[in-house]
Amino acid sequence: MNNLDLVIIGGGPAAWSCAMTAINRSLTCTVVTAGTQRSGMVKAHMITNYPGLPNISGDELMEKMRSQAVEMGCTVMEGNARQIMPAGNGFMTLVGNDILQSSAVVLALGAAMPKLLPGESDLLGHGVSWCGTCDGMFYRKKPVAVLSAWEGGVEDAEFLAGVCSSVDYYTLAKHTLPEDERIAMKPGKPLSLEKCEEGIRLKTDAGEAVYAGVFVFRPAVAPGTLLPGLELDGSAIRVDRRMATSIPRVYACGDCTGQPLQIAKAVGEGNIAAISAAADLAALKKGNA
Amino acid sequence: MNNLDLVIIGGGPAAWSCAMTAINRSLTCTVVTAGTQRSGMVKAHMITNYPGLPNISGDELMEKMRSQAVEMGCTVMEGNARQIMPAGNGFMTLVGNDILQSSAVVLALGAAMPKLLPGESDLLGHGVSWCGTCDGMFYRKKPVAVLSAWEGGVEDAEFLAGVCSSVDYYTLAKHTLPEDERIAMKPGKPLSLEKCEEGIRLKTDAGEAVYAGVFVFRPAVAPGTLLPGLELDGSAIRVDRRMATSIPRVYACGDCTGQPLQIAKAVGEGNIAAISAAADLAALKKGNA
Repeated sequence: MNNLDLVIIGGGPAAWSCAMTAINRSLTCTVVTAGTQRSGMVKAHMITNYPGLPNISGDELMEKMRSQAVEMGCTVMEGNARQIMPAGNGFMTLVGNDILQSSAVVLALGAAMPKLLPGESDLLGHGVSWCGTCDGMFYRKKPVAVLSAWEGGVEDAEFLAGVCSSVDYYTLAKHTLPEDERIAMKPGKPLSLEKCEEGIRLKTDAGEAVYAGVFVFRPAVAPGTLLPGLELDGSAIRVDRRMATSIPRVYACGDCTGQPLQIAKAVGEGNIAAISAAADLAALKKGNA
Repeated sequence: MNNLDLVIIGGGPAAWSCAMTAINRSLTCTVVTAGTQRSGMVKAHMITNYPGLPNISGDELMEKMRSQAVEMGCTVMEGNARQIMPAGNGFMTLVGNDILQSSAVVLALGAAMPKLLPGESDLLGHGVSWCGTCDGMFYRKKPVAVLSAWEGGVEDAEFLAGVCSSVDYYTLAKHTLPEDERIAMKPGKPLSLEKCEEGIRLKTDAGEAVYAGVFVFRPAVAPGTLLPGLELDGSAIRVDRRMATSIPRVYACGDCTGQPLQIAKAVGEGNIAAISAAADLAALKKGNA
């Protein structure tokens, strides 16, 4: 028994459109978003070709869509979806330290696919982690590094400062930095990660250092890591005309399915994903009855 | 040299969305519409899941979209597209008795695919016609029947009344009937057409009659007849994720590509069709330079 019919990951037009139609089809859903300001849409000063709302700013259109979905009954969880795991007939989605259970998942991740550091993907779970509160205990009283691209890494770094012997903080992208005397701000742009006898060697453009563990924090997770086994077409998630991915009851919509990166296209794909999910869940229920 | 980059056939959300994005991509375009009131959208009393405009009526949303496209520079031609013919590197679209030349065509025909009468398709050009002003002269001073599903047939019937020895008028669907003493209103629902020695035998649920020619008028033309060679999936036009059909530089979007019959989906597909057309026309121009 899953709590939710649908978990929608994203905070742009595809996600809100999907939520509205899901609710219209009597599905329960939660949108997990690292913040609507992360959508490419809010950067648009003036949108002329969104049908029905001529000459609207991206900010204003985003707020209209978000509030419309919320008024229809969509719940919103602020946070970064770290991992999606199949569980029984459904899925568990890890958001920060919370877990959402759902029968289906919609990926509306946007176009901003994170670029990993060389070595990062291979070392994940072997000295490299994306979750401080999940893995911090493995590095109790040992020196660790935090590599963060956003504010979301600050809280994890503070948690690690209470567990590990030292925390060095490197920035992958500009953001509001931690102000905690237990955390040492480090210069240098991280370039690569590699295994060594003492743990993980971090190379930066200012030199190198070795840590027992390295934690990397970004506002988005690469789709293939978020949900192992998900098939891609280049950097886009592979979908069919129903917006179904290679994994049953996982759908994708919006910029993460590839060109064109347009609001109308995102809204249309979100709509289709919701309807496909509703049909597939109804069929599943019928088959199980 | 074609007059237009794009001819868009339809009058619903897919057509207007396509026009807006085509204009944004510097394409010239004309929307050919048998009337926006023919779109399924205008029948919706209240639309809740169109992102950005909660609780709007179909009528109001349609008018917003139409006027937005027109203000952006889209031209509109009222009329029924009868046939599309490949011509050189482009297409000729027959609208009533006018011809539009374009480099690409977008089909946004809606869901209302006409159901033909038994025998109708085979006899087209052999005693059965869809165009009074085109074929009326073949039946000069001979008796003809008009079978009409809409107001658009009235004008053709009046034209035929001045050419043929008699015009019997049958209704295929409720509409405003002609008021012309030269036109005889007939009871009976048309059931089938067949060839006979004297011309065409029309069977109705009230009996049968023989005519030299039979003219059939509907607000839409079946896609396979509109553009011979167009591949279908059941009753929907087959498209790929770029909204390309089986014929190069012909795209389809909205309800005519199949389920779900939703405004957001139509708007998204119209957007994609315009962008695909812009890309394909740019590639064509480059290849020809």
